[in-house]
Amino acid sequence: EPRGAAAEERVLVINTGGTIGMVAESGGLAPEPNKLVKALKKMPMLHDKAYAQERVPEFPDDTLVLPLSKQNKRIVYTIKELSPLLDSSNMTPDDWAKIAKHLQKYYEHYDGFVILHGTDTMAYTASALSFMCENLGKTVVLTGSQVPIYELRNDGRANLLGALLFAGQFVIPEVCLYFYHKLYRGNRVTKVDAGSFSAFCSPNLPPLANAEVDITVNWETVWRANTTEKFRVHTNMNTNVALLRIFPGITAAAVKAFLQPPIEGIVLETYGSGNAPNNREDLLEELKKATDQKVVILNCTQCLRGTVTPVYATGQTLTAVGVIPGSDMTPEAALAKLSYVLSKTDISWEEKREKLGENLRGEMTVVPTGAKISLTNS
Amino acid sequence: EPRGAAAEERVLVINTGGTIGMVAESGGLAPEPNKLVKALKKMPMLHDKAYAQERVPEFPDDTLVLPLSKQNKRIVYTIKELSPLLDSSNMTPDDWAKIAKHLQKYYEHYDGFVILHGTDTMAYTASALSFMCENLGKTVVLTGSQVPIYELRNDGRANLLGALLFAGQFVIPEVCLYFYHKLYRGNRVTKVDAGSFSAFCSPNLPPLANAEVDITVNWETVWRANTTEKFRVHTNMNTNVALLRIFPGITAAAVKAFLQPPIEGIVLETYGSGNAPNNREDLLEELKKATDQKVVILNCTQCLRGTVTPVYATGQTLTAVGVIPGSDMTPEAALAKLSYVLSKTDISWEEKREKLGENLRGEMTVVPTGAKISLTNS
Amino acid sequence: EPRGAAAEERVLVINTGGTIGMVAESGGLAPEPNKLVKALKKMPMLHDKAYAQERVPEFPDDTLVLPLSKQNKRIVYTIKELSPLLDSSNMTPDDWAKIAKHLQKYYEHYDGFVILHGTDTMAYTASALSFMCENLGKTVVLTGSQVPIYELRNDGRANLLGALLFAGQFVIPEVCLYFYHKLYRGNRVTKVDAGSFSAFCSPNLPPLANAEVDITVNWETVWRANTTEKFRVHTNMNTNVALLRIFPGITAAAVKAFLQPPIEGIVLETYGSGNAPNNREDLLEELKKATDQKVVILNCTQCLRGTVTPVYATGQTLTAVGVIPGSDMTPEAALAKLSYVLSKTDISWEEKREKLGENLRGEMTVVPTGAKISLTNS
Amino acid sequence: EPRGAAAEERVLVINTGGTIGMVAESGGLAPEPNKLVKALKKMPMLHDKAYAQERVPEFPDDTLVLPLSKQNKRIVYTIKELSPLLDSSNMTPDDWAKIAKHLQKYYEHYDGFVILHGTDTMAYTASALSFMCENLGKTVVLTGSQVPIYELRNDGRANLLGALLFAGQFVIPEVCLYFYHKLYRGNRVTKVDAGSFSAFCSPNLPPLANAEVDITVNWETVWRANTTEKFRVHTNMNTNVALLRIFPGITAAAVKAFLQPPIEGIVLETYGSGNAPNNREDLLEELKKATDQKVVILNCTQCLRGTVTPVYATGQTLTAVGVIPGSDMTPEAALAKLSYVLSKTDISWEEKREKLGENLRGEMTVVPTGAKISLTNS
Repeated sequence: EPRGAAAEERVLVINTGGTIGMVAESGGLAPEPNKLVKALKKMPMLHDKAYAQERVPEFPDDTLVLPLSKQNKRIVYTIKELSPLLDSSNMTPDDWAKIAKHLQKYYEHYDGFVILHGTDTMAYTASALSFMCENLGKTVVLTGSQVPIYELRNDGRANLLGALLFAGQFVIPEVCLYFYHKLYRGNRVTKVDAGSFSAFCSPNLPPLANAEVDITVNWETVWRANTTEKFRVHTNMNTNVALLRIFPGITAAAVKAFLQPPIEGIVLETYGSGNAPNNREDLLEELKKATDQKVVILNCTQCLRGTVTPVYATGQTLTAVGVIPGSDMTPEAALAKLSYVLSKTDISWEEKREKLGENLRGEMTVVPTGAKISLTNS
Repeated sequence: EPRGAAAEERVLVINTGGTIGMVAESGGLAPEPNKLVKALKKMPMLHDKAYAQERVPEFPDDTLVLPLSKQNKRIVYTIKELSPLLDSSNMTPDDWAKIAKHLQKYYEHYDGFVILHGTDTMAYTASALSFMCENLGKTVVLTGSQVPIYELRNDGRANLLGALLFAGQFVIPEVCLYFYHKLYRGNRVTKVDAGSFSAFCSPNLPPLANAEVDITVNWETVWRANTTEKFRVHTNMNTNVALLRIFPGITAAAVKAFLQPPIEGIVLETYGSGNAPNNREDLLEELKKATDQKVVILNCTQCLRGTVTPVYATGQTLTAVGVIPGSDMTPEAALAKLSYVLSKTDISWEEKREKLGENLRGEMTVVPTGAKISLTNS
Repeated sequence: EPRGAAAEERVLVINTGGTIGMVAESGGLAPEPNKLVKALKKMPMLHDKAYAQERVPEFPDDTLVLPLSKQNKRIVYTIKELSPLLDSSNMTPDDWAKIAKHLQKYYEHYDGFVILHGTDTMAYTASALSFMCENLGKTVVLTGSQVPIYELRNDGRANLLGALLFAGQFVIPEVCLYFYHKLYRGNRVTKVDAGSFSAFCSPNLPPLANAEVDITVNWETVWRANTTEKFRVHTNMNTNVALLRIFPGITAAAVKAFLQPPIEGIVLETYGSGNAPNNREDLLEELKKATDQKVVILNCTQCLRGTVTPVYATGQTLTAVGVIPGSDMTPEAALAKLSYVLSKTDISWEEKREKLGENLRGEMTVVPTGAKISLTNS
Repeated sequence: EPRGAAAEERVLVINTGGTIGMVAESGGLAPEPNKLVKALKKMPMLHDKAYAQERVPEFPDDTLVLPLSKQNKRIVYTIKELSPLLDSSNMTPDDWAKIAKHLQKYYEHYDGFVILHGTDTMAYTASALSFMCENLGKTVVLTGSQVPIYELRNDGRANLLGALLFAGQFVIPEVCLYFYHKLYRGNRVTKVDAGSFSAFCSPNLPPLANAEVDITVNWETVWRANTTEKFRVHTNMNTNVALLRIFPGITAAAVKAFLQPPIEGIVLETYGSGNAPNNREDLLEELKKATDQKVVILNCTQCLRGTVTPVYATGQTLTAVGVIPGSDMTPEAALAKLSYVLSKTDISWEEKREKLGENLRGEMTVVPTGAKISLTNS
């Protein structure tokens, strides 16, 4: 079937490391540099050698091209490998900044972006980048795999292919995460399974898109920034933040230790709908002292699915000592949001507290999904 | 339909508090004492008034009786209310001890036990009790509800009824948790949903039983203690333990603060299959120092489903600094096990470390469920 | 908390029979007449005796009242028992007409309607009533149970309570089906499990509402008739219709036998996306002959989830012999729609064929849910 | 990492057609002959060209070799393409016989077998082959795909790879079906989704194996034939069988027409736990007449999940007129079993009826999974 010349879309792939490009070594699986591009060039589902050769010399060594898509598009993609490649367990806020700067640098040169990343901290990075990217107008998709792409059976090929197709063919102006045929909002996901190809879950928001027999996008869920401002990245995230999970018998001493300077913000992982002991004066005292010293405490639930609401007496006590309810944010998103908002130098402490309660990037549900009981249909 | 005189089974219900018995107050929902028994007596599905009146004066005020079951059994249950009733957010290791002592005190007088408890920390308490109860030979079932039993629509009635039927009719010698028609092993569950009746999940072990149209028990999963020793409870749990969740950018200072005396044990919530940064010398140094000072560190994954395995280089580094792999234990179970094992005064530190790696109450999978790839069926 | 006098809503419950009111007899479970009202009056969660007694003599024998709801409403409900009570396996189109006539007769006297029905054919009846009810402006909810309400453990209490609350408190002007805390569109469901409380599934449309910790209605899914015409029921359904499931080796003789007069319409349950053999001239010939003789053939898939689409050569052949694609209708809905449309005497055969392809009561998806692949977001 | 010479396993792939090898034509998707082998040779994940070239001339044109597996095995596979290639909607019992004869002919020459097949009737063919293969001692795996392997995004590559690995590396002596990372017993599956990669479901039996990050086989579920007899195929299936789905209003005339000679057996798709109208004398009369004339009627439920049990009066009536309860068989398996048992010439009609109630190939649960309520654990 003869077709007209296909439109070309350009995607930048930023390879940060992760299982997708790992090989077995004596110390366990570890990433190996300068190997992925060569390997991908030998996979016809991810590189159309004939097309590339016709187009030489336009195709530099780090650039590949997908076979023609059903939509008659050519996705030409360039892989930039960060150095060193990282097991995502080793990823830090500095690495987030490095990725963000790459997005900034190449923003105008590409139609979309894919970030290859280990699954272990992918939800943290996706959350962080969602805040660091201001006025995003292009599709950014994080992906990776549970099994290295060099193994016979692996999920890396399909994940990379899907991520490239979303980044190259759709304008979904969010930091997304693509895994096992689903596209999620990046700041809504959490890793829930270490042994399945279906590793991620978006507990409080349905997926943005699905790619099985057909590709279907839930456009009504896609985030609309309503901005005409220019894209920029905010990289100086405040790292004086931490996650603290409440448990029965937690001591005031431990909480106090955790809230010491230089800490400026804490995500408190509470029980159920945002509850913590309200009969532990020692504990509440420490939280109150901290907020008095302008430490921001953001309340998220330990439950996979759930929303921090002021239904229980034990939850209301927290609000009374200055803790901010975090609605249905994941701990990963809450931590990233704290890091982001606390790093803003042009707003006051009160404004920061207020901003933490607002929905900045679709990371939280302000009005609950689905109307609560209401007797009329207004 | 005339039936022969039904066998009577006796169940003790220990009411510790929780949503099931809460009423709305100005400060939010809170438990109200001396109210539950009276309310239950007015619910025919939970109390057969006619039968009780016939049997007077054997029925004291705190004792109720279920209507005849399909198995032609009468479950007579007595409710002991702890004081004060607790929102489970306020539950502490002291309260666990109180519950355990009740089990001990009444062990010979009842056929089975139900513990009413708030959902927020029910998984923690179920885990703790599973270790505290040594040589358990009777059924112990924790339950509660998401909506108070005093409300029109609630899940308390069905949860209590199911728990009573399991405690009174089956010998499942474990600390179990019953919720929304499923009976789980107590040290395998975690609360995953703050807004659904299906609040709990047993991510790495299937339910012990199901009670929908029929009651089906998966007997092959039920724990067999293989002991003829006498039941006893161990109540002096070590409370110098804590949960520490790893996140990108976590500082060595925070970790150090958390590992200070009097801390003796830590559950480290790591990434994926048990990974943590292996390029952070400062962090590893703190962990090593702690183990050198005989702090025990137990490695569990942040993922809902998953097992700590030494597949990645980043995971192997932890083992190298003395961290103990926690297999597929939930953080709740791991914390309780630490508390329990560290409180044993008759074994050495090395023996404690060893015991933490053993399967004591069915809390972890030593040999993975389902054979891994194997070419023959041996 | 003192409340003002509660608003009263009136609901009519039409009891047609089914497991919910069955008792065990020598021949198996069978419905027993004149028993349900008496039993319900003894269940405080379904009848507030004190309130009723205060209101005597307004409360006739067949009328009950729910305890006050969270929304400060009183739902007063009257139970009309059809005679004979039916195991739903015995339900026929004549019985549908009987139910519909009751709806018509009492339409102005009640705010909402609940129909108690056996689960076996509840999806068929719900589908039929959805078409028979024209210009419906009130909530009609079918429900029942998997275990009789007279048994100790049963799902009948909760199902009846939920159905009453939806019928009495919400204006969802559809024929709905409520089961296990979910409200579905009646012509979208199918019974998928004979042994679980979660017996029904709405494979191609999400539930209309959920009633767990909170009641949430997906108002955007609720059907809007856009009519100001008066409610009426259409009862003379055409019963010369049948369901025919294709299978490998089906003979032309069997198909021919099935398509003989007086048959006027057939739901053909095909494979996958609406496929049938396209190399079986004998079979296609029979189908063609039938359509030539004005038998209407409506194509639905055997797959639980799926849509009849003209993607495959084997599917296109059916369209060529006059078969009408049924989109994502369930077989139950398709059969009911055939029965309904074929009984219309004021439209031509061609108009009937056209009507079958239109979305009359939300029974089919005309534009697929979620946009298929589209490069822009228009 | 140097390895010793890998063991070679030989797999025969019988390509019968189906979506996996289809291309778009004017009339819709249709299979194209002599194309698949060529295409597979260009996919490095499914063919190791270097290895094959080294081994020339041992590699005929129709033979390919997988890259080395993790288990250090080489799977060499030969593709036999049936002619004509079929859309599986066109598959008939004659085609089943053709496939079975191929299995017979090549049984001793290969270690395992893969059958490429369209998804539409794959469950029917898998069921039929499970009975046709007597004394099977090798692994037979049916697979296919929802999207052609020639398209950019498809599930064909992964399905074929997984099927080859199971057929070549494991002795699971059953007719299996592999799809979307799960291996099912072939006579337990049904196609449930026309639009998802997860197209099949095994409603009443868990999967035999799972292939995600690890391959895990549930060996305790794998069928053990306990036979030392020689493998043989039974191909003269009785085709005078049919599927008849009960629905409200079904006429005795339609049933009678369906039960006419030459019909010898019918799968009756009943409601719920095996129920049909017991007040329809006309209908029961027709069923009785049929059994009197030695037509065998096998009772299966319309519900996806469920078991035919004699709990309801409406179900017991069927047994009374000679209908055989089909337990939890799928309609596909029941139809195949009828076809198989009725074709046996060496047993009487009574013996055939008896055999239909026995578990011949793991197609039905004789003792329910999980013990029903039992007060002791014996």
